[in-house]
Amino acid sequence: MEIAKIAGGERTMKFGISEREHKARIETVRKTLAELRLDALYLTSGVSFFYLTGYSYIATERPAALVVPVDGEVTFMGPLLERDHIPLKTRLIDTVRTYYDYPGKKHPIEHFATFLDDMGLTKKSIGTDNMSGAAGIWGYKGPSITDKLPQTKFVPAKDIIQNMRLVKSEQEINLLRESAKWTNLAHTLLQEYTAPNLWDLDVAFAASYEASMIMKKTLGPDYQPQGWGRDPASAGFRGQVGEMSAIPHSIATNRPLKEGDVLITGAGADVGGYSCELERTMVLGDPTVKQQKFFEIMVQAQDQALNALRPGAKCSSVDKATHRVFRKAGLTKLTRHHTGHGLGLEGHEPPWLDAGNDTVLRPGMVVSCEPGIYEPGFGGFRHSDTVLITEEGAERLTYYPRDIKSLTIPV
Amino acid sequence: MEIAKIAGGERTMKFGISEREHKARIETVRKTLAELRLDALYLTSGVSFFYLTGYSYIATERPAALVVPVDGEVTFMGPLLERDHIPLKTRLIDTVRTYYDYPGKKHPIEHFATFLDDMGLTKKSIGTDNMSGAAGIWGYKGPSITDKLPQTKFVPAKDIIQNMRLVKSEQEINLLRESAKWTNLAHTLLQEYTAPNLWDLDVAFAASYEASMIMKKTLGPDYQPQGWGRDPASAGFRGQVGEMSAIPHSIATNRPLKEGDVLITGAGADVGGYSCELERTMVLGDPTVKQQKFFEIMVQAQDQALNALRPGAKCSSVDKATHRVFRKAGLTKLTRHHTGHGLGLEGHEPPWLDAGNDTVLRPGMVVSCEPGIYEPGFGGFRHSDTVLITEEGAERLTYYPRDIKSLTIPV
Repeated sequence: MEIAKIAGGERTMKFGISEREHKARIETVRKTLAELRLDALYLTSGVSFFYLTGYSYIATERPAALVVPVDGEVTFMGPLLERDHIPLKTRLIDTVRTYYDYPGKKHPIEHFATFLDDMGLTKKSIGTDNMSGAAGIWGYKGPSITDKLPQTKFVPAKDIIQNMRLVKSEQEINLLRESAKWTNLAHTLLQEYTAPNLWDLDVAFAASYEASMIMKKTLGPDYQPQGWGRDPASAGFRGQVGEMSAIPHSIATNRPLKEGDVLITGAGADVGGYSCELERTMVLGDPTVKQQKFFEIMVQAQDQALNALRPGAKCSSVDKATHRVFRKAGLTKLTRHHTGHGLGLEGHEPPWLDAGNDTVLRPGMVVSCEPGIYEPGFGGFRHSDTVLITEEGAERLTYYPRDIKSLTIPV
Repeated sequence: MEIAKIAGGERTMKFGISEREHKARIETVRKTLAELRLDALYLTSGVSFFYLTGYSYIATERPAALVVPVDGEVTFMGPLLERDHIPLKTRLIDTVRTYYDYPGKKHPIEHFATFLDDMGLTKKSIGTDNMSGAAGIWGYKGPSITDKLPQTKFVPAKDIIQNMRLVKSEQEINLLRESAKWTNLAHTLLQEYTAPNLWDLDVAFAASYEASMIMKKTLGPDYQPQGWGRDPASAGFRGQVGEMSAIPHSIATNRPLKEGDVLITGAGADVGGYSCELERTMVLGDPTVKQQKFFEIMVQAQDQALNALRPGAKCSSVDKATHRVFRKAGLTKLTRHHTGHGLGLEGHEPPWLDAGNDTVLRPGMVVSCEPGIYEPGFGGFRHSDTVLITEEGAERLTYYPRDIKSLTIPV
């Protein structure tokens, strides 16, 4: 019912990946399996279910797997409560095999062993993203599928889907472009509502609520956020307020915003399951000389990384470009992380803009660009933009201003 | 800085677990290790870090582990960006050992192998919640810690923490009681704002925003939500609107609310990382005869489960009690899941109120009680309450009305 019919009988979601592209993805899996002389791919990651079929579900302790045979029916194995759900979301899962619930009198993994046997896969070679046969979330416990099927050859194959996701298709890029717009709105409202004496959560809620409802009403009934608990659009501070902005993964703060605070923000918007990443350093009131200095050095580092992002360049070289700026400024000891990471369906994905990653950038790759510096007790300085590698170089998909004047909030 | 000093030098969070209780938990781990003749526990689950020390962090592809030796220093191994964060959150991690970032020139797991060697654990027996040595989130890839330390005996030991979490302490129960209040407020506002022609997301946002800000302003600066992306209080429908209420794990709906809809809600509130679960079936406008019938049967099933919840009873017997009601009504084919699950720090935890789980209920266990029936194309009917097993029987911590009159929204 979330699937609209379009001309030619093909179904597609207006704000999602077309059935045609999902089919092509499944075909790519089958071709890769043939090349690797594998008979099936056994996936436990819900993100992979969604990537291949457009069906998104809530992952819990209940094991679930999508099995793509080199030829034969694409089969979902999972809890009964998903049975009526799947046909509403995709036509690309041919068979749904379920157990009643977890743990059950007979463990789900035992059912899965029976299902794989029914599919004629017992004496075959199966690639998998998880050798235990289950994602193993929350309180899950169970035997390994490899122990239940000693005659089956299981082979680690997390790379198959991961490699496919490395370079984004035109449809994926369009979704990220759409995401950039609503990400921008959420961030614009966040900045507009930021003021001394408010809690960061209050500002974040107000901006996310308003941006989400405008987005939903603008895009219409065909638009739905794809992930459980994901807002259409969101923006916030995640506790990175004042001295806590020096903690890159701060979660919460224990005081309201106040004049003089350095703030680090984060914003995103779910379009067909894809989201951009947009982060900004803002200053509440006139920046001090030191705040201004750190801000400018961080922007220089981001500029250098943006210049280095182009097809043919190694990920590690982009990381080197930012660290060169910090080293020149004598601030290497204030860095806490590498320059960025791939993104799309998940918050962080390969490739990593990291000293240890020599992956060569290709057109269609999408990465965050987010060098930062952090002085404990003083503050943190980081912008993050979502950048598409193009044939010619790179394009910043997120287009929010980056300069200190635009990001200073008058008090 | 999120930690307040109280008399006697002990630190505690006002809305969290005391340092004393965290210390006792670590001591319990050490005693269990001694009994099992293990030299250390190697944990990769962020929930376990939080459970033992009060330090909550954002789990990413970057590997992290907490190592509790049977004697010796509690050690965190993880990315540099957590180094300055940890001392702000806990005094119970003695040593923080970090690598710069993932994947790095030297893989984090190689660093971890070196760290364990430094700790004198190489030739010892180590229990772990994950034999690969890393939680393996997002795009993580890496060698297994067991391959890097062939002289070390690694033993699966996910049960150690899980068993400790089965029975809640007085402090944990108090946090859940506090959570129940704000859960109730969020749900009250949700019901108040529910009206035809609104999007479910709009109603959910409004209720969650208002409840969260009232909660935050009521509890004061010492209150902070503990999890990444967790709102203080939240309530919503998660797409369970009208015919989509028949999909227990629906995520989104493609039309606004309308008269005649059956709605299934969900609400919670994070207090010190613990949250109750509260779900209700509501009807928008006067219920039809069939809606009323299904509603009443569901309430009967929940009543039977609530009666069966008492110390000494098996989890499976509670599940049987609900299925008996549905069988008598001839509606067994409309059930999609078991009766409930434990909860506390995570949405679902052991024990499972499931036919396959003969765990005996004990005072201090906390479970959801949520039998449901679902007719595709018609609707779903499920209430969920959070129930504490007491010495005498059971106590419903969530106290929202359950009867159809209270849950009918006049149109």
